[in-house]
Amino acid sequence: MTEFAKGLEGVIAAETQMSFIDGQKGILEYVGIPIGELARNSTFEETVFLLWNHRLPKKAELEAFNRELRANYSLPDAAFARMKAIPADAQPMHVLRTMVSGLAMHDADPNANDVESARKKALRILGCTPTIVAAFDRFRRGLDPVDPDPSKNFAHNFLNMLNDADPTEAMARAFEICMITHADHGLNNSTFTARVIISTLSDLYSAITGAIGSLRGPLHGGANEGVMKMLGEIPTVDDVEPYILGKLERHEKIMGFGHRVYKAHDPRAAELKALAKQLAHDTGNDDLYEKSFKIEQVMDREVGSRGIYANVDFYSATTYHCIGLKLDLFTPMFALSRIAGWSGHVIEQLADNRLFRPKADYIGPHAVAYTPIDKR
Amino acid sequence: MTEFAKGLEGVIAAETQMSFIDGQKGILEYVGIPIGELARNSTFEETVFLLWNHRLPKKAELEAFNRELRANYSLPDAAFARMKAIPADAQPMHVLRTMVSGLAMHDADPNANDVESARKKALRILGCTPTIVAAFDRFRRGLDPVDPDPSKNFAHNFLNMLNDADPTEAMARAFEICMITHADHGLNNSTFTARVIISTLSDLYSAITGAIGSLRGPLHGGANEGVMKMLGEIPTVDDVEPYILGKLERHEKIMGFGHRVYKAHDPRAAELKALAKQLAHDTGNDDLYEKSFKIEQVMDREVGSRGIYANVDFYSATTYHCIGLKLDLFTPMFALSRIAGWSGHVIEQLADNRLFRPKADYIGPHAVAYTPIDKR
Repeated sequence: MTEFAKGLEGVIAAETQMSFIDGQKGILEYVGIPIGELARNSTFEETVFLLWNHRLPKKAELEAFNRELRANYSLPDAAFARMKAIPADAQPMHVLRTMVSGLAMHDADPNANDVESARKKALRILGCTPTIVAAFDRFRRGLDPVDPDPSKNFAHNFLNMLNDADPTEAMARAFEICMITHADHGLNNSTFTARVIISTLSDLYSAITGAIGSLRGPLHGGANEGVMKMLGEIPTVDDVEPYILGKLERHEKIMGFGHRVYKAHDPRAAELKALAKQLAHDTGNDDLYEKSFKIEQVMDREVGSRGIYANVDFYSATTYHCIGLKLDLFTPMFALSRIAGWSGHVIEQLADNRLFRPKADYIGPHAVAYTPIDKR
Repeated sequence: MTEFAKGLEGVIAAETQMSFIDGQKGILEYVGIPIGELARNSTFEETVFLLWNHRLPKKAELEAFNRELRANYSLPDAAFARMKAIPADAQPMHVLRTMVSGLAMHDADPNANDVESARKKALRILGCTPTIVAAFDRFRRGLDPVDPDPSKNFAHNFLNMLNDADPTEAMARAFEICMITHADHGLNNSTFTARVIISTLSDLYSAITGAIGSLRGPLHGGANEGVMKMLGEIPTVDDVEPYILGKLERHEKIMGFGHRVYKAHDPRAAELKALAKQLAHDTGNDDLYEKSFKIEQVMDREVGSRGIYANVDFYSATTYHCIGLKLDLFTPMFALSRIAGWSGHVIEQLADNRLFRPKADYIGPHAVAYTPIDKR
């Protein structure tokens, strides 16, 4: 008899050509290209093309891809009407999951699931989720939504819709690097969820909706919220050392440090760190950068020798705060980016599908008679 | 190295105390009680209690359970407002997935995921999904919704909301048996989806929303639609024999016969069959029953020796048609019932959780340099 693989630990459940992770060496590659190279040189749009096509685009291909993505920035009027009937205190991840699910109802052929159709639907979802998140955030703040602007790229357009102001260059680039570095990361739980759902030959809306539901779990997508909460608990840079040492003494987890997979420096963190200082300065958040920098110094001194380093969440938290995002929009940012990875995995699954149908081990009684209610 | 288990075939991914299936012998038990006993003696509400508590309720417990379920029949006004902004031609499974996802936004503490909270949320979802499905169907037919009636049980209340008329006894009982027999069935894809999602300690709304997305896939929940389509293709009872023989000769699949798991009689089919004749007669659908009966005769004669028998979908299709359901509401009925199983599995997962995090095998290139766009 097969053994019970709790949490499917150690089980290989899929093949992928997208991301490769070597946690011991601190390597993350997308289709073989180190994440640092992409963070330094690529755009989010180009990175998405890379993940979905397993190669970088030629110039004309990238232009066509951008055109199609931008044509999908707008939301249908009826979807806006539904958003207006959402309670203003709803949590953005529940809103995002519900609104993405609802997009299927405006697709003339929502269930088409050949690879080409899935790719088109993926551009649809990727193109308008920034609009959903920005519009809901403005709606709950009592502000009118800002129309998407198809003359702007993904990052610039989102920040403009969120703040009704053009972002600085550092802001747009830091946000773009967050999008690039979170786009795919092996068979994490939400990605696995998307593959399990699509394996019934369901549709991309169903798969992405399920993945958003998975990502919002505290064991998955919520870590950068924790970093920001910690930064809020430390009044000034002088309070960093006692705060961190106190936590270490009590064996409490320091959010944004260490990673289940990476035992070396998180390869996604370096590029973000380089931009964080400029971004913090531009947005009047010098104190936030100084606290973060000091936390990292203390942590490197105290636990760096044990392979516990700042991870991607540590600097994405500062980035998200500086670009004007409320705490509860941090995980939706993760979702915006990871839609690229989820969609790419759905495309891979559709190209060589087998229904996911593991077994459960029944551990209850057998052949029990039905006892009438007055004899129980 | 672990081997790639495509589709997780043969992998045990969870333990359960809910349903046991022996396909060779044609056995399905819920917590040890044969499904036939439950179909003959139990109610849907009692069956749900059984699945969630791993035992039948005492009288007072069942009364309390019914009270709480019925208190959840109503939808919030804002959810109704969102439904009115749904295109009338939307497919009901997309509507159901979206509306269930939206319920989280009306829960004061949607993310609570201790077992007791999950149980309360499960009653919330189970209680008002019939209201969602019936209201949307009436809305798209240009009719006003019928308010739920907390003086009626699950089956009676749903049929009354759908047709604005009390069901006959055969109608209500046949529908109830459909609900009982579809409530749980091991670790099928949608149930597995729900367990994978909740394992991030996400919330029940996210888990059920994901499961609905899985169920709508043609490899999973769509089979009874196929039965009805087939019955529609056969003009009269005299056309059955040539139709079936023709299909068998061309090696085409006969919908509603055979089952991936059951190689003996599907234990869920017998009770439904017994009611189908009466129900068809009551609703002026004698011809439908006669065609179904004849199809089964021909199939038993031709392929019964190979273990291919009518399955639960074969008679649930007739039942659903006779109670007034459009074809595209058949899979939503499956969902209404399976919410019981999904929720029960979520409760089991929460009680002994480990994050589902299998591995992917990376099969792409390594250490690829980033080539600038004008050099590609």
